[in-house]
Amino acid sequence: MVVQFTAEDYAARMRRAAQEAGRAGYAGLLVTPGPDLVWLTGYQPTAITERMTVLILRAGAPPRLVVPKLEEPDAQAATGAAVLDFVTWTDGVDPYEVTRPLLGSSPAYAVADSAWALHVLGLLRTVPGLRLTALTEALLMLRAVKDRPELERLASAGASADAAYGDILKVTFAGRKETEIAAELAALLRKYGHEQVDFTVVGSGPNGANPHHEAGDRTIVPGDTVVLDFGGLRDGYGSDTTRTVHVGADVDDEVRRVHTLVRAAQQTAFEAVRPGATCQDIDRAARRVISDGGYGEYFIHRTGHGIGVTTHEPPYIVEGEAQPLIPGLCFSIEPGVYLPGRFGVRLEDIVTVTEDGGRRFNNTSHDLAIVA
Amino acid sequence: MVVQFTAEDYAARMRRAAQEAGRAGYAGLLVTPGPDLVWLTGYQPTAITERMTVLILRAGAPPRLVVPKLEEPDAQAATGAAVLDFVTWTDGVDPYEVTRPLLGSSPAYAVADSAWALHVLGLLRTVPGLRLTALTEALLMLRAVKDRPELERLASAGASADAAYGDILKVTFAGRKETEIAAELAALLRKYGHEQVDFTVVGSGPNGANPHHEAGDRTIVPGDTVVLDFGGLRDGYGSDTTRTVHVGADVDDEVRRVHTLVRAAQQTAFEAVRPGATCQDIDRAARRVISDGGYGEYFIHRTGHGIGVTTHEPPYIVEGEAQPLIPGLCFSIEPGVYLPGRFGVRLEDIVTVTEDGGRRFNNTSHDLAIVA
Repeated sequence: MVVQFTAEDYAARMRRAAQEAGRAGYAGLLVTPGPDLVWLTGYQPTAITERMTVLILRAGAPPRLVVPKLEEPDAQAATGAAVLDFVTWTDGVDPYEVTRPLLGSSPAYAVADSAWALHVLGLLRTVPGLRLTALTEALLMLRAVKDRPELERLASAGASADAAYGDILKVTFAGRKETEIAAELAALLRKYGHEQVDFTVVGSGPNGANPHHEAGDRTIVPGDTVVLDFGGLRDGYGSDTTRTVHVGADVDDEVRRVHTLVRAAQQTAFEAVRPGATCQDIDRAARRVISDGGYGEYFIHRTGHGIGVTTHEPPYIVEGEAQPLIPGLCFSIEPGVYLPGRFGVRLEDIVTVTEDGGRRFNNTSHDLAIVA
Repeated sequence: MVVQFTAEDYAARMRRAAQEAGRAGYAGLLVTPGPDLVWLTGYQPTAITERMTVLILRAGAPPRLVVPKLEEPDAQAATGAAVLDFVTWTDGVDPYEVTRPLLGSSPAYAVADSAWALHVLGLLRTVPGLRLTALTEALLMLRAVKDRPELERLASAGASADAAYGDILKVTFAGRKETEIAAELAALLRKYGHEQVDFTVVGSGPNGANPHHEAGDRTIVPGDTVVLDFGGLRDGYGSDTTRTVHVGADVDDEVRRVHTLVRAAQQTAFEAVRPGATCQDIDRAARRVISDGGYGEYFIHRTGHGIGVTTHEPPYIVEGEAQPLIPGLCFSIEPGVYLPGRFGVRLEDIVTVTEDGGRRFNNTSHDLAIVA
């Protein structure tokens, strides 16, 4: 078992967040339920609803949680609750009025990216002079650089996903539906320690050419190229890896050529990882290999995304993101090529930035595996 | 099998939404993924992320879906997609700039309640003169009044939940964990036709006094009062019912007194349902019974919520909501009493407003059932 984060760990995160907000010119942060709240307090309500919950972080003030009265017991049970002042409200009361006096005058706040429009507009309507900026734009790197306990969790999650991949290579693909393989992948992730499975993409044949295809009723046949992209949370931190396999050893020349190209793109991007390189440098490194190979127009998404308490978070490895890499930053490198109506190939590892380069949290072979 | 909604059904909903927005003084609606988008188009992406998808509805203009390029195939597969103009954007492009020319000049829009702050603030920053109002505040009743096919689905979902309750009364509670009973309830909902289980609250003994308790590791013992609150989606429409049971026939006097009171409150509120009564009238009817019985301070939540393509939606049956009831409106009536550290009692039925009163979609006995 991993050592659990303590109330003091959460308090330190909250202090740092308030300080970073202050340095960036904000009065503080407004954090509604979601990954930021989990990271700051350990609290995750059972559902995110129209009843507003919001954590208010301001330098020099105690962290306050505005929470519906009937959700207070759940919130109090979170580890980070020990250092929070609770402000409760009951049905029939206007929660924005309850929040107003806690924010100061004409304040600028960073607000969680996924805060509901209902609450954002309610606060803007109620708090005179309030200015809001999405947290990603205000403090892109708040959760991005992981400390050692977080890196250990991400490494464990990656090793679990790798173990699941090792096992799935041994099952029979031909004659079975994508959804069956997806269910086996999910069971393997749980077997290897994940408490939550977020996605198990099984994109066979033409379905592999749709990068957001999950898994469907298509029956896999010999000769299929199959994209396997799976991940979830282990001890609260994410895994996310993709390998492309082939059903039977009779591999089409173009499948092999595209796979070799995507593999080279992934490796080239990985080798570009070092402190000081930017997010877009990594995207460009991968994209150049695929463009030079003649498949640029078929690499239709960015190269990657951050990972932490979610499997998918800022910063993004995309053209236009000039944020420099910093040791402890963790993200995916996942170039792909998608040939409509035919097949797709994607390879993905989670990597972290080290003092002098990068380290992979996924370490299974990049060879085109042949499955039965 | 139910008859599936057609592209024309969705087109009619989109036309009506644009018309209602116009009558309320808005240029139109901006609908991000969530229940409103499901209801309007049948489209639900596999995940709601920082990549913006938004449906733009304006009177006199074709409905347009702004969608990330790599999610376009999934969106195209939705039934309602047949009548949509697609506007795609790729990673690295600013989706708010893509959306700007589609909105008109200095426009006022209603925006889905759960639209992300990231997108709301991105649009407000990018579109000159844009004014946004949460959809619930702009068009509270847009999805609230159900047509006949919707009422049939809600009735079927209610009947399924009732069947699940009938079966759960036959299992042994004493000596088993709340989570085990919750798992059986979930399996029963699926057995009786639900494709999605949203919640299976099992609040035994003191846990029943926390209305938002789901199910935990507590082992149920003889003498426990147990709140069972469960629901999900069948054919895309919601169920949600609560009954409170007792383990063994030796029932504490106060448990029986509170149960009788909550039952009377539920019945009184139900009898108040008729066209022209308001949402808050129903809340007041339930609350008065419980207050008169001396337990008013322990009824710590509103009386109910709407239901449709989600198990929990506007309008709310709460003090301050003066919206009149209209035939076809569907909502929960779920008064409760919660005695901290001791037990809770809640009774909940879904009801619909008819021409001259109300009709229940849950019809199991309101008696305090004795379980083993």
